[in-house]
Amino acid sequence: MSGRVTVLTGGIGGAKLVLGLCRAMSADEVTAIVNTGDDFVHLGLAVSPDIDTLLYTLAGKSNPVQGWGRAEETWSFMEAVRSLGGEDWFALGDGDLALHVLRTQRLREGHLPSAIVADFASAWGISATMLPMSNDTVTTRVVTSEGELDFQHYFVKRRCAPSVRSIHVVGAETARAAPWVVESLLDEDSRAILIAPSNPFLSIDPILAVPEIRRALSETRVPVVAVSPIVAGDSVKGPTAKIMRELGFEVRVDVIAQHYAGLIDGLLVDERDPPAVLDVAQARVDTLMKTLDDRVRVARAALDFADSLRR
Amino acid sequence: MSGRVTVLTGGIGGAKLVLGLCRAMSADEVTAIVNTGDDFVHLGLAVSPDIDTLLYTLAGKSNPVQGWGRAEETWSFMEAVRSLGGEDWFALGDGDLALHVLRTQRLREGHLPSAIVADFASAWGISATMLPMSNDTVTTRVVTSEGELDFQHYFVKRRCAPSVRSIHVVGAETARAAPWVVESLLDEDSRAILIAPSNPFLSIDPILAVPEIRRALSETRVPVVAVSPIVAGDSVKGPTAKIMRELGFEVRVDVIAQHYAGLIDGLLVDERDPPAVLDVAQARVDTLMKTLDDRVRVARAALDFADSLRR
Repeated sequence: MSGRVTVLTGGIGGAKLVLGLCRAMSADEVTAIVNTGDDFVHLGLAVSPDIDTLLYTLAGKSNPVQGWGRAEETWSFMEAVRSLGGEDWFALGDGDLALHVLRTQRLREGHLPSAIVADFASAWGISATMLPMSNDTVTTRVVTSEGELDFQHYFVKRRCAPSVRSIHVVGAETARAAPWVVESLLDEDSRAILIAPSNPFLSIDPILAVPEIRRALSETRVPVVAVSPIVAGDSVKGPTAKIMRELGFEVRVDVIAQHYAGLIDGLLVDERDPPAVLDVAQARVDTLMKTLDDRVRVARAALDFADSLRR
Repeated sequence: MSGRVTVLTGGIGGAKLVLGLCRAMSADEVTAIVNTGDDFVHLGLAVSPDIDTLLYTLAGKSNPVQGWGRAEETWSFMEAVRSLGGEDWFALGDGDLALHVLRTQRLREGHLPSAIVADFASAWGISATMLPMSNDTVTTRVVTSEGELDFQHYFVKRRCAPSVRSIHVVGAETARAAPWVVESLLDEDSRAILIAPSNPFLSIDPILAVPEIRRALSETRVPVVAVSPIVAGDSVKGPTAKIMRELGFEVRVDVIAQHYAGLIDGLLVDERDPPAVLDVAQARVDTLMKTLDDRVRVARAALDFADSLRR
């Protein structure tokens, strides 16, 4: 067995676990398969929020307070956009623009998203392998009490206020997994596959909606462990608990286990959650990741748990 | 006779005269026809250097030291571009990016350059009418000792170091003048047409290379006065004198008058230049525009001179 670990992840919450993994083990053995369902074009620029959050987090450039964007960002661009009457509901920091402008330019030149993110990660000295889930356009759309909204419209412009009725992932059915995604999931020599504690509905489901990825995950012989996004009966940050309720679910770890049924071998549960009977194995630890030490500790717990599930 | 004045202009030097005009008379009677031969796409963004310099200058947002770009600019974007290995020879300030990003977005949506610049000017409270010379793509290329270069490659990347052999204006022959350009030049009720002291070869010739503009200027019954770009036998800033010598010309006002032969009725000459016999009328004043007062004074002198030439 190698030490290779593959992790399915969204943005802010997931990036914490991926950073913990990169410190808990050799970072060059970590492969992150990242949600691109949130990607959108804003002011003509191609924005990949989850990819970018992971880039900033792993490169040590992330804003530690807000969880997204860059540390020590400046905002001259947004101010000038506002003065020109441009759309200002989605904040693009001055330094942050570099990723969007260079990505847009390279996409227009015909480069693939997977090649672009690999080059960005390499330029910033990131040892982990970052893979977009797909090089095809896959778009998460949220059906709400206010109608069907683009993900960023729901998430940023409306701040998750509208009640969610259902979530579509447009384009997923025909999307191919990006190069190395399926290979890394089926690599029998790997130590573990993890599902980060990202929003299962908004951030992980779009990844699982790519047929090749779902199939590889259900077929792999490598232990698959999800880290529950529920901590002490609630979501840590972000709208997971709110969305679960709106979709008619109880905010309980057995609902999470049920959601990933057939795909995971175990669920890493927060020790503060009420005991629950699951159809898969479980381990209980403190899963709250406030400090870097927390992140390393939770990553280690997930890996140890996966090791214990090895057939 | 109305008070309307139309001025043909490039960027930095020309913008000084246009600002002077806007203070010397009612700004809403000033129409600037601006060179777009320097326009180029950089990092996938549509950049219009002369249009932007004029926007910043007339909106009171220009950097008073460097002559281009915005006052109190920040540079987080360029720093991040550099960290990602992107091209950094052309400096795009953070706030400056707003013009390029919004312009690029609107061009992709099918808006015309003339409509975009009108909206930008309006958003920033500019009363003067700003017209790009053409809505078609016209590209100034410089044949040098180092081969044929894009304008910005020659001007910014190589800092005008290569010796100029000739200048092409690609696309000019088939370009149409933008709406209102010809109308404003032929408006018999106007007070004057001015040619700003911009580089005649790099900044004014591309405007004159648009057949409709050259024809309108040669046919108009309105007095046409050029302000000489030569001050005390040299160019003030920028490479006018250097380029004249490289093209085999003497740096003399009679060469400027000859260059505009058939198009101008008079040349406003710097009083420090040696006396010269010209084929057109001349007036001699201090044409150096360091302060705002200088700019207003030179604008007034050009207008008075034009008035004196009225047939």
